[in-house]
Amino acid sequence: MARLYHVPLSPFCRKVRLVLAEKKIDCELVEERYWEQNPDFLRRNPAAKVPVLRIDGKTMSESGPICEWLEEMYPDPQLIPDTPDERYEVRRLVNWFDDKFHHEVTSKLLYERVNKKVTGQGYPDSKNVKFGAQRIKFHLDYMTWLLDHRRWLAGDRMTLADFTAAAHLSSLDYISDVDWNRSEPVKDWYAKIKSRPAFRKILIDQVPGFPQPPHYSDLDF
Amino acid sequence: MARLYHVPLSPFCRKVRLVLAEKKIDCELVEERYWEQNPDFLRRNPAAKVPVLRIDGKTMSESGPICEWLEEMYPDPQLIPDTPDERYEVRRLVNWFDDKFHHEVTSKLLYERVNKKVTGQGYPDSKNVKFGAQRIKFHLDYMTWLLDHRRWLAGDRMTLADFTAAAHLSSLDYISDVDWNRSEPVKDWYAKIKSRPAFRKILIDQVPGFPQPPHYSDLDF
Repeated sequence: MARLYHVPLSPFCRKVRLVLAEKKIDCELVEERYWEQNPDFLRRNPAAKVPVLRIDGKTMSESGPICEWLEEMYPDPQLIPDTPDERYEVRRLVNWFDDKFHHEVTSKLLYERVNKKVTGQGYPDSKNVKFGAQRIKFHLDYMTWLLDHRRWLAGDRMTLADFTAAAHLSSLDYISDVDWNRSEPVKDWYAKIKSRPAFRKILIDQVPGFPQPPHYSDLDF
Repeated sequence: MARLYHVPLSPFCRKVRLVLAEKKIDCELVEERYWEQNPDFLRRNPAAKVPVLRIDGKTMSESGPICEWLEEMYPDPQLIPDTPDERYEVRRLVNWFDDKFHHEVTSKLLYERVNKKVTGQGYPDSKNVKFGAQRIKFHLDYMTWLLDHRRWLAGDRMTLADFTAAAHLSSLDYISDVDWNRSEPVKDWYAKIKSRPAFRKILIDQVPGFPQPPHYSDLDF
């Protein structure tokens, strides 16, 4: 059985969990307090980050390369399409969320409100929180524009881009930082993703000190 | 002919330039002062970053997805190998340099010393510069460890991982921030990459206000 070292609200870990679940790969979850730099964990990943996936005798880090490997080794269901142009668009959006969205929104809201407290780094910086709360509007509007032109974020089929975006938004939704009333298309898109069997375990995550808000696991949020 | 919107010392732009040159794709370089947020440029890339590549009627952003697309459309010479395990290792190292190395070293040295001045953001933060100068030692040692076990960074063949690492190191070498005496294996590896025809244009880059040091373009540095 595969084993994933993770933390529950990390969007990078959630992306890997969603891909594993979509591909019906059984996986044991192990919470890893990576910031404590346990020597055993550092041996598994010198970059000292989660996720780390142990599967088929290999130990892998970095969510991007892990998801590409899973797609190549476990191609069913297909989450990265066939043609170079479609593949580019999926990867562009994966990067958009893991880089730009992460930098402007996830790190400014989730990391300030949750990670700082959990890792003992003090209180949220209100300037960062304000910046993140402002920028998420731009990103929700960009998603609305995409979804006005396409059924899913990267085209007419559900892909890794959708799971990447949903990983970030679900982590932010856990701390009630997503205004679902801003965009009907984004809300409809998230409702479709949220009701997938692969999402079930994400919806029962619990983080000590941060109780789940009632709408978080509600499929009619 | 392809057209790349870039800035000369950006390691992400240099990675794409090296891949284009290795694959013998003719490309016109256009310097883009992306921080001025020119509306024409924002239309080409709403993320407001370089590189942006115009090729075969497409406009693409994000160096990672661009390089994967180039590899799929122009497979000769091969820069990402065939098997999922080898592909994973190449992508892991591409991420290592574009994420961890960039965060700990490139952004702390190059961005403080050059980008801040060029974009009018003031003087280098000496705390950051000190941190970067310290962390580059760890990364050079990690490269040494890899090169003690392999001919190239990701295995026995030259790959995208080598060009990614060389893109970062060459930008830092332009401002004399790489101590080549620290590691014989790393110096030998860089000498091999530096002497490739694909590297020539990188070695004639000039940035106003930052004269090229003599060793930068010297193949016997």
